[in-house]
Amino acid sequence: MKDLKERIRKEGQNLGNGILKVDSFVNHQVDPVLMDGCGREFARRFEKLGATKVLTAEISGIAPALTTAFHLGIPVVYARKTKPITMPDQVFLTLAPSHTKGRMVELIVSPEFLANHEKVLIIDDFLASGATILGLVRLAEAAGSQVVGIGALIEKSFEHGREVLNPLKVPIETLACIRSMEGNNIEFCDDLPSA
Amino acid sequence: MKDLKERIRKEGQNLGNGILKVDSFVNHQVDPVLMDGCGREFARRFEKLGATKVLTAEISGIAPALTTAFHLGIPVVYARKTKPITMPDQVFLTLAPSHTKGRMVELIVSPEFLANHEKVLIIDDFLASGATILGLVRLAEAAGSQVVGIGALIEKSFEHGREVLNPLKVPIETLACIRSMEGNNIEFCDDLPSA
Repeated sequence: MKDLKERIRKEGQNLGNGILKVDSFVNHQVDPVLMDGCGREFARRFEKLGATKVLTAEISGIAPALTTAFHLGIPVVYARKTKPITMPDQVFLTLAPSHTKGRMVELIVSPEFLANHEKVLIIDDFLASGATILGLVRLAEAAGSQVVGIGALIEKSFEHGREVLNPLKVPIETLACIRSMEGNNIEFCDDLPSA
Repeated sequence: MKDLKERIRKEGQNLGNGILKVDSFVNHQVDPVLMDGCGREFARRFEKLGATKVLTAEISGIAPALTTAFHLGIPVVYARKTKPITMPDQVFLTLAPSHTKGRMVELIVSPEFLANHEKVLIIDDFLASGATILGLVRLAEAAGSQVVGIGALIEKSFEHGREVLNPLKVPIETLACIRSMEGNNIEFCDDLPSA
C-alpha cells in the first residue's frame, strides 16, 4: 500500500538487529487516518472470506484490527497479555515470544468471545517470525474457531514468518513488505535490485 | 450517549466492588461501530478546543482515543506501560494505580511526540478515581504540553474522579455516567430516583 510504504520510507528507523521503529505512526503515536486507510484495504482484500471476528494481540495490533473490523462491520477481540479481573477463571492461554520485549509473553482470550465456531481474521502490526500470529492461531483453534485469513501492516520477509504460516493454507496479506534491513537500509520487497 | 448507555444496560455486568465488566464491547471484545460513534461524539463536543494531539493510556483507551483522533484529524499517542526497545532512553514516566490490576503501573511517553507545546485532549475508557487520567495530565505537562480537555466513555461518579480533575479547569465530557453500583444494580446518573 503506497501510503504506508511512503510513511515507512519517510519516518521508519532501522535500529539494527532487524528492529524497525515506526513509533511516529503505528506503535506509540498512531496516525488514525493512515490506520483507517489500512483497515479499509484489509477489509477490501478479505471481504470474501466471511469472517465473523477480527482477532489481534494487544497492544500495537489494536489500531489496525479496529479499523479493519470497522470496515468489515464485525467485532474485534484483542488477546490480553495479562488477565484482568473482569475475565473468567477459565481462559485460553498460550505463550509467544515478544520481539520488542526479548522474552515470552502470555496471550489470553476469554472463551466468551471465540467459542462460537467463529471465522477468525487475524490482524497484527508486524509479520516477522510469525510467532505471535501463530500464538493467535492456537488460541482461535483451541477455542473452537477457524482462522480464515491473516493480515499484517508490515512484513519483514527476511524473518520468514510467511513460510511458517503458509501451511495453514489461508490468505496472508501484508500492506508493506521489507526484504532487507542490512546496514542502515530499509529495502522493500518490490524495490528494484540495486546495481 | 444513548447507544453506549443501552449497551451497558444490556451487556454490562456489575462484578461487585465497583467493577463494571464491559468486556463484550469495550475492554476485550470491541464493537468498532460503537467506538466510531463515541469518537465522533467526542470530536463534536471537543472540536472548538483546537487540540493537536489525543493522549490515552494503553490498553483499553486506545480504541476510543483512535476514533476520536480520526474524527478530529489529529494523531493519537498512547502512553506505554512498559518501555519498548524502540523508545529512547530518556522518557517521561509516572506511576498510576491500576483499578483492574490492583497495583501501580508505569505510564511512559517518549519526548518525541509531546514536547512541541501540544494542546492535548485526553481520552480514556473509564473516569473512575481519576488517577490514571491525572497521570496522563502529569506526563503531558512534564513534556511541556497543555491539557485542553478530558473525555471518558464511562464515568463512575461514585468514585469522584470528576472532583479530582475539576481543579484543572478544562472541559470534562463522559458519554455514560453511572452513579451507583450498589447490590447488583447499575444506576445511571440521569435515571429517575427510585420510589
